[in-house]
Amino acid sequence: MAFRLDQLADLCGARLEGDGSALVAGPATLDQAGPDEVSFLANPRYSPLLSSTRALAVVVGADLAVERRDICLLRAADPNRAFSRIVAAFASERPAVAPGVHPRAHVAADAVLGADVAIGPNATVESGAVVGAGAVLWGGCYVGPGARIGAGSVLWPGATVLDGCVVGERCVLHPGCVIGADGFGFEPTPRGWIKIPQCGTVVLEDDVEIGANTTVDRARFGATRIGRGAKLDNLVHIAHNVEIGPDSVMAAQAGVAGSARLARGVVVGGQVGIGGHVKIASGVRLAGQSGVYGDLDEPGDYIDSPARPKREALRRMAAASRAEELARRVRALEARLAALEGGRP
Amino acid sequence: MAFRLDQLADLCGARLEGDGSALVAGPATLDQAGPDEVSFLANPRYSPLLSSTRALAVVVGADLAVERRDICLLRAADPNRAFSRIVAAFASERPAVAPGVHPRAHVAADAVLGADVAIGPNATVESGAVVGAGAVLWGGCYVGPGARIGAGSVLWPGATVLDGCVVGERCVLHPGCVIGADGFGFEPTPRGWIKIPQCGTVVLEDDVEIGANTTVDRARFGATRIGRGAKLDNLVHIAHNVEIGPDSVMAAQAGVAGSARLARGVVVGGQVGIGGHVKIASGVRLAGQSGVYGDLDEPGDYIDSPARPKREALRRMAAASRAEELARRVRALEARLAALEGGRP
Amino acid sequence: MAFRLDQLADLCGARLEGDGSALVAGPATLDQAGPDEVSFLANPRYSPLLSSTRALAVVVGADLAVERRDICLLRAADPNRAFSRIVAAFASERPAVAPGVHPRAHVAADAVLGADVAIGPNATVESGAVVGAGAVLWGGCYVGPGARIGAGSVLWPGATVLDGCVVGERCVLHPGCVIGADGFGFEPTPRGWIKIPQCGTVVLEDDVEIGANTTVDRARFGATRIGRGAKLDNLVHIAHNVEIGPDSVMAAQAGVAGSARLARGVVVGGQVGIGGHVKIASGVRLAGQSGVYGDLDEPGDYIDSPARPKREALRRMAAASRAEELARRVRALEARLAALEGGRP
Repeated sequence: MAFRLDQLADLCGARLEGDGSALVAGPATLDQAGPDEVSFLANPRYSPLLSSTRALAVVVGADLAVERRDICLLRAADPNRAFSRIVAAFASERPAVAPGVHPRAHVAADAVLGADVAIGPNATVESGAVVGAGAVLWGGCYVGPGARIGAGSVLWPGATVLDGCVVGERCVLHPGCVIGADGFGFEPTPRGWIKIPQCGTVVLEDDVEIGANTTVDRARFGATRIGRGAKLDNLVHIAHNVEIGPDSVMAAQAGVAGSARLARGVVVGGQVGIGGHVKIASGVRLAGQSGVYGDLDEPGDYIDSPARPKREALRRMAAASRAEELARRVRALEARLAALEGGRP
Repeated sequence: MAFRLDQLADLCGARLEGDGSALVAGPATLDQAGPDEVSFLANPRYSPLLSSTRALAVVVGADLAVERRDICLLRAADPNRAFSRIVAAFASERPAVAPGVHPRAHVAADAVLGADVAIGPNATVESGAVVGAGAVLWGGCYVGPGARIGAGSVLWPGATVLDGCVVGERCVLHPGCVIGADGFGFEPTPRGWIKIPQCGTVVLEDDVEIGANTTVDRARFGATRIGRGAKLDNLVHIAHNVEIGPDSVMAAQAGVAGSARLARGVVVGGQVGIGGHVKIASGVRLAGQSGVYGDLDEPGDYIDSPARPKREALRRMAAASRAEELARRVRALEARLAALEGGRP
Repeated sequence: MAFRLDQLADLCGARLEGDGSALVAGPATLDQAGPDEVSFLANPRYSPLLSSTRALAVVVGADLAVERRDICLLRAADPNRAFSRIVAAFASERPAVAPGVHPRAHVAADAVLGADVAIGPNATVESGAVVGAGAVLWGGCYVGPGARIGAGSVLWPGATVLDGCVVGERCVLHPGCVIGADGFGFEPTPRGWIKIPQCGTVVLEDDVEIGANTTVDRARFGATRIGRGAKLDNLVHIAHNVEIGPDSVMAAQAGVAGSARLARGVVVGGQVGIGGHVKIASGVRLAGQSGVYGDLDEPGDYIDSPARPKREALRRMAAASRAEELARRVRALEARLAALEGGRP
């Protein structure tokens, strides 16, 4: 499949500078693109590659100064979004699950399936479960007794929603994620740890996306809740009774301990740890590998473990960096002072 | 479902202060409870909420001073445990797997099933496996060739026990956990990494709980061993030949490298990393995100990476915090000394 | 099963010192071996155990000085490798999947299976997938539409390869790993996060090993690529458009953010975090829990977060350790200077 450059300009709403009849074979990064490929520049980190790229054409900002005259330009207000349209144009359609229930799926007799549901081979829908209209259950996924899957949601292979949990509409659950395993609660006794019953559920509100092998535990009582439009990456852990605010995003391998509450629009970097029972205000952005052990009440960027406002943390790090130099200066002071004390000039 | 307050007091062994005939609709947190709900105060962090809660009743300690007269109190020696009983009373029974082998499960002809085993749809029990009496295998779980599952154990959907591994009695394996994948062992050679055969197994002793998507690798030889009563949270990694002592607990996303040995009753926080071959003494408690790279011989609290005794680590952190102030004081000293040296007063 | 000591010496190419007719019951660690077992000493950390081990025989280096005369020695140039041979000799053969397609597997009518493929119960091979000769698909694994599995590769139970992804020859995919879930890409809009289409795939080159519950996301365009011979441990996260160089190794719970590129032979410790878009040179070795937020152009050992060359990082840590002592010295200087300034002797 190939497109003419003026076709690509049209479909992504870009202004073309160059030969519209040139044929484009596909999208590629600036440093890997060949002379029949289209690339893009959205992250300034890659600007230097513009001078060396072999790409036929590059999607750039509307006003970016470009010295080279031998590459075509597709000028767009949002180069990233424009390039996404080009990428999608070249992509073949992702395959779908065949409509209806695959003969090798197990759907309990009393499960309720909405219109146009598609269920793949070796999938399981247990007793009393409800699957909304247009939902797609890929092969090997699992919907537990009494669980509810909202209309238009997609469960990829191996995604698991346990008994009584609720998934909203248009959610996407990637392979291997686990919704509703027991919260991790045990009481110490002289005979060892005794399990604290985990009697609640999990609620994923509408438009939530849960990454591959991510785990969201059921609440001790009430519900662990992921707010509308929140997006969780792979291998994230959400403990019991946590609340993640709407439109929050969490990068891979982040973890949130029990009963913590994140407000709307919190941004959590990869491998971040958030302690139990803390509250995090709307607009907080946590850098990768940071750790939160107390409430964060003010919006803004935080880094380090324990997490501090970025400005303060950088100042502390700079000070710590000067410890070697400081030690030298103290040695010098000691020598000079000893000289003075000794009466020598 | 609703309970009278005096019924709840009875069932959790609390002393009631207030109107026993009041009807309670369910349990909730102090800040979310409505006027027909019961809450609890076990963590002092939440004490301030007692003055603002709208709850009908609150489970509190036997002697806690409470100023408000408009809420009922359920006084208990252990408010957390008492509240667990109330939570359980309101919870509907968790669903069960139907007794027997589901027609869509695969159980090898030479597998041995104990009395009253329940095996769900799309579950797999391979050749030579042994499943003890009363064990529950949810849909989609996997028991490999020659593996043994002890009596009364529960494998949730997607839990996987590979060939030859041994699971004790009354264990709980949450969805997606993997018991017995190969240990990560490779030898460098001029032609790349060559796999070191992983010929051992995994042994989970009795009463062990393994979290969702947690991985416990098989040993190079002998067995990776999780001691009786140990509890592992979600997304934990246990490498080959590790030994986790009885009654140890590990929070989510912690990881232990090869051949490390944790004694009885070690407490490991979330996202902790434990290096290969280290030994950790009984009674060690590791704070979240800490890292252990050498033996820890003394019980007590450790924080930081590399982990240090908490007291020492806090002193170091405080000193590091003073680096900025120290730099200012050194500058002042230098100026004063220069003045002295220059003969100025 | 037991072997004579001279048999073991033969099979691992070691030079025997001691009674070749002694019978060995199995392999064990130095501190756990009984008087009929064989152990080994490869890691100098364990040297002290040589004086106390109860083992019948120990595999040691060719020239190691050993004082004890009451244990047999198996002297080998590479004791670790020699011991692996002994371990393998005692191990029973790992079970295999029965040849052919299990009646409880689902293989789409238009999937293409090579010669001698073995597919277990409850496995799924979707439409248009291609499985190479001699590949082994354990029960419960999943091969998506149009995915390709190379000859001789092994997918353990629950391993999942999504649509269009490509697995090379002789790869090993451990249980629960997910190849080809969507990359984590969203654009902020006034109506919340909008998904950036993830139109690429994943390519695992030949001889790659992917750990249990590890996730490798599909690219936004083109392919996320794991180079020939690379080995990834459990619970590792690889984001979209990442490239991992050939023969690189990554320990458990490490994570790599989008578009990062690791060259050939990079060694990544456990729980390491690697930021988006960074480049890491061949021969870089990252210590456990380190964090990489900028390019690393020079080979060598790095530690800490942000990662620094080991030597520099250790110097910084030592300086930081002296902050307490430094504060004391500054206090002393201040007192002495005040005395001088006050005219007191």
